[in-house]
Amino acid sequence: MQKAILLVDGPLQAGIAAKLAQFVYANNGEIVDFDQYVDTEQTPRLYFARIEWALDGFAIEPQQIKAALERELGTQYQLHLNLKLVTRPAKIAIMVTKQLPCFYGMLTKILSNEWYAEASMVLSNRMDMEVDAKRFDLPYHYLPITPDTRVEQGNKAMAIWQEQDIDLVVLAKYMQIIPENVLASYSRKMINIHHSMLPAFVGAKPYHQAREYGVKFIGATAHYVSEELDEGPIITQNVKPISHKQTAKELVSVGKSIETETLLRAVQLHLEHRIIISGRRSIIFE
Amino acid sequence: MQKAILLVDGPLQAGIAAKLAQFVYANNGEIVDFDQYVDTEQTPRLYFARIEWALDGFAIEPQQIKAALERELGTQYQLHLNLKLVTRPAKIAIMVTKQLPCFYGMLTKILSNEWYAEASMVLSNRMDMEVDAKRFDLPYHYLPITPDTRVEQGNKAMAIWQEQDIDLVVLAKYMQIIPENVLASYSRKMINIHHSMLPAFVGAKPYHQAREYGVKFIGATAHYVSEELDEGPIITQNVKPISHKQTAKELVSVGKSIETETLLRAVQLHLEHRIIISGRRSIIFE
Amino acid sequence: MQKAILLVDGPLQAGIAAKLAQFVYANNGEIVDFDQYVDTEQTPRLYFARIEWALDGFAIEPQQIKAALERELGTQYQLHLNLKLVTRPAKIAIMVTKQLPCFYGMLTKILSNEWYAEASMVLSNRMDMEVDAKRFDLPYHYLPITPDTRVEQGNKAMAIWQEQDIDLVVLAKYMQIIPENVLASYSRKMINIHHSMLPAFVGAKPYHQAREYGVKFIGATAHYVSEELDEGPIITQNVKPISHKQTAKELVSVGKSIETETLLRAVQLHLEHRIIISGRRSIIFE
Amino acid sequence: MQKAILLVDGPLQAGIAAKLAQFVYANNGEIVDFDQYVDTEQTPRLYFARIEWALDGFAIEPQQIKAALERELGTQYQLHLNLKLVTRPAKIAIMVTKQLPCFYGMLTKILSNEWYAEASMVLSNRMDMEVDAKRFDLPYHYLPITPDTRVEQGNKAMAIWQEQDIDLVVLAKYMQIIPENVLASYSRKMINIHHSMLPAFVGAKPYHQAREYGVKFIGATAHYVSEELDEGPIITQNVKPISHKQTAKELVSVGKSIETETLLRAVQLHLEHRIIISGRRSIIFE
Repeated sequence: MQKAILLVDGPLQAGIAAKLAQFVYANNGEIVDFDQYVDTEQTPRLYFARIEWALDGFAIEPQQIKAALERELGTQYQLHLNLKLVTRPAKIAIMVTKQLPCFYGMLTKILSNEWYAEASMVLSNRMDMEVDAKRFDLPYHYLPITPDTRVEQGNKAMAIWQEQDIDLVVLAKYMQIIPENVLASYSRKMINIHHSMLPAFVGAKPYHQAREYGVKFIGATAHYVSEELDEGPIITQNVKPISHKQTAKELVSVGKSIETETLLRAVQLHLEHRIIISGRRSIIFE
Repeated sequence: MQKAILLVDGPLQAGIAAKLAQFVYANNGEIVDFDQYVDTEQTPRLYFARIEWALDGFAIEPQQIKAALERELGTQYQLHLNLKLVTRPAKIAIMVTKQLPCFYGMLTKILSNEWYAEASMVLSNRMDMEVDAKRFDLPYHYLPITPDTRVEQGNKAMAIWQEQDIDLVVLAKYMQIIPENVLASYSRKMINIHHSMLPAFVGAKPYHQAREYGVKFIGATAHYVSEELDEGPIITQNVKPISHKQTAKELVSVGKSIETETLLRAVQLHLEHRIIISGRRSIIFE
Repeated sequence: MQKAILLVDGPLQAGIAAKLAQFVYANNGEIVDFDQYVDTEQTPRLYFARIEWALDGFAIEPQQIKAALERELGTQYQLHLNLKLVTRPAKIAIMVTKQLPCFYGMLTKILSNEWYAEASMVLSNRMDMEVDAKRFDLPYHYLPITPDTRVEQGNKAMAIWQEQDIDLVVLAKYMQIIPENVLASYSRKMINIHHSMLPAFVGAKPYHQAREYGVKFIGATAHYVSEELDEGPIITQNVKPISHKQTAKELVSVGKSIETETLLRAVQLHLEHRIIISGRRSIIFE
Repeated sequence: MQKAILLVDGPLQAGIAAKLAQFVYANNGEIVDFDQYVDTEQTPRLYFARIEWALDGFAIEPQQIKAALERELGTQYQLHLNLKLVTRPAKIAIMVTKQLPCFYGMLTKILSNEWYAEASMVLSNRMDMEVDAKRFDLPYHYLPITPDTRVEQGNKAMAIWQEQDIDLVVLAKYMQIIPENVLASYSRKMINIHHSMLPAFVGAKPYHQAREYGVKFIGATAHYVSEELDEGPIITQNVKPISHKQTAKELVSVGKSIETETLLRAVQLHLEHRIIISGRRSIIFE
């Protein structure tokens, strides 16, 4: 089913919900989902909504909807209107280094048709996982990185993504720093998985630190990238209890499992357009 | 803050959300919260909503709102409109037998001002907990039960509740069968806590059964009563992992803790009017 | 590292732990792990232990250890002594029908070297997943089942497992009844994943039932098979909270994820010889 | 039942477990629980054990056990032997400021006989909770604090604890800095509850920070105090998922509930002598 999803945010004003619903109904659209949230702790209070309706039979041509919305609602209500048209599977570029779980987790979701998406390509700074990409007949782009070539290879990656019309880049345990210009261009189209409950244990060996520190839980954080990698808006987090009995190696294994679960959830929320970023917070319409 | 909360359910029709919002705005009301849910798996699809607005400055007198709503929305849209006016703390009657945790848990919420409610009385079939009620200066009604006096004492309890204008009866580990006429009269104003994840292990010693069976989780279920006790609509459930190491006594202790947490959450959801029952399901606006 | 793992159970008697430890030390063995549990709620009290030591440098030849143990400990203490020698990766036969997540989850663990095991073959009653087995160059045995051929195909499967020296059969969402003689022969070498928190919702569509019933959690249970499939001793269980908002299709997706996590954990516990079955309970040395 | 609990830690050496078990058996003791753990990631490897046995019928007088243990085991094996004799309910001093949930949670455990302990007194820097202490007929010591009187009042508190033979001091949301000399004297007999998942969000308003930062979980940490308050060894931690919908006030309420659950668990583990501190890690025998 082809559909439109409208993400709305702006200052709360009387009658916004009614106006939004009327826009869809007046144009013969059938609302499938209408979820709203008001943040009453900000001044002025902030209004957020996600409206999903079927494109079939809708009176306005898909390409004209955005303009019609702006005309009727945008100026008067000072709303930020973010329209998503779902008309084909999303195209995902997967960035990997050498860890398998996140990669296989994503492929499982796609092959099981749980996501309306395709894995369009795999990019890596190493050759290790070419064999894995080949199992699924996925194009594998080998882009080795040195400090001197980082920016050049980043631009090359962006060129490949643009040529293939990539909708989302997933850093599925990609162990390289992303150049600033790439982060800036893809800040809402690039999801990273971080191996800890941000903001704690931001270093490279969080599971060793967790064991050393004697913490009783470990976690993972999926987030949009921002110009400071590992500091972008959080989409999802998960934790699992651990005990003193687990070795650092076992914690790494538990950690990979949490990372995979967390990343998969974040990607799915993104693919279903259920996320609005407001400041550094994410509003999630589940 | 005095406020009105409207719970709505009925078949989905075009424009309901807009109409509801307009009703409040047109009468100068400020919507604090507006949450909706459409069950697309029923035929016809079902619409549920919870709207909360401040009574202060609202153009219609509180006692006239219900009629105004019915006039403008009820007939045309075949909606079930359930209006709650929050103008004073809810009055709770607590039913107990001898277990302390749920009782003390409720008192803690009330004394901490986390609930907009008061404990108006304690009723029990035993004298054991009079000392606990007295600690908090609560009236204690001792209503001993034999099979012969069950119905008579049930009627007596109802008379006490009605006289004191009780809004909610909480069975906080009350170990007696409730007579059918009481269940029928209080089916949406009486919450019970059941010591298992319904529908499993419905017997009297679920934690012993859980151990015998070797299950790895135990849980609890808070539900409205129905004419079949332990079978009414579920409000909340919780589970905790257990291991073979725990003795039946330890499981009972864990169980009490889960029961308390689950019951407290259910009572809070009820007090905030966040529950709509549809068939045997509960729609929870969190 | 080659190692021996001894699982012990029997009535508790004075000095057992000392005797067990002495046996290993007296023969120059280095204990890596020694975990014990006493069930004080049975009469007589029951003793359980798991001892793991390195075979390297051990004074007794691997094939003679079992006899030496029986001689020194078995008769006197009435212990059940279950010795496991870990000298090569475990050989796993994976049984599937058409669902991918459990299968890909297992392959990910094996390819990541998180398990000391190999996937030796895939067996199925359908051809759907041959393509998936081929991605990993795994032999695929197509064994279609009709009510008339069930027993014959079961015997054929057993012949294949025996020929290949299979250590463990995993029913990774295998949607066929297993013949009684197979269950009897493999009752401690065959793990099934059941799509609910046993003993509740044992039917074919548990997630639809869960939604209909309005439960707030769904779960999965991994267990050894017994002659009554879905009724064998529980190894692991997991649950996830759900809400009224989730459609039956979404619950199925959540359910697959829980099933996969639960099955993977159970297989790992089995591969590491951390499970003793006592009656219908499982003692897990984590 | 009067019993002895021996907590052991030291470098792993051959035969320790056998020696410990023999000591108890040779003196006619019946071991109720014997749990061990080896940390194989340290050099040398570290051995930890907890042995619990009945004092009734034991051949050595309780006051002589420690010396007998040291004689037979201490020197030869370089073990740290920590013997606890459980012969009367533990005496707890509760320190509070104004939050009720942790206080009422502790009283519920004690009144339900889930803990083998008594609340011997309440100390506070404010008068707010005298009414709560009086409900349970508990002595209430009002010790107001100014920067100038902090050390003096700390010494006064210690004098009261010593006079009453207090075993454990619980900081049940006590909102004052503890003087260094008190921390030093009570570092393994004083438990604090910290309102976050240490080491993150160590400031005064963690729930506001959590909301601002958009995290998806909040937690609490119970720990022994050390000379740096909030930095002592972690005993237990808990987390709960949160969403953007929750106001800071609601998060505070969820937080109190997590704090209470976490503190209660930590106190119980302490009362049952299930904790060994090794460096900054806690080994928990559950």
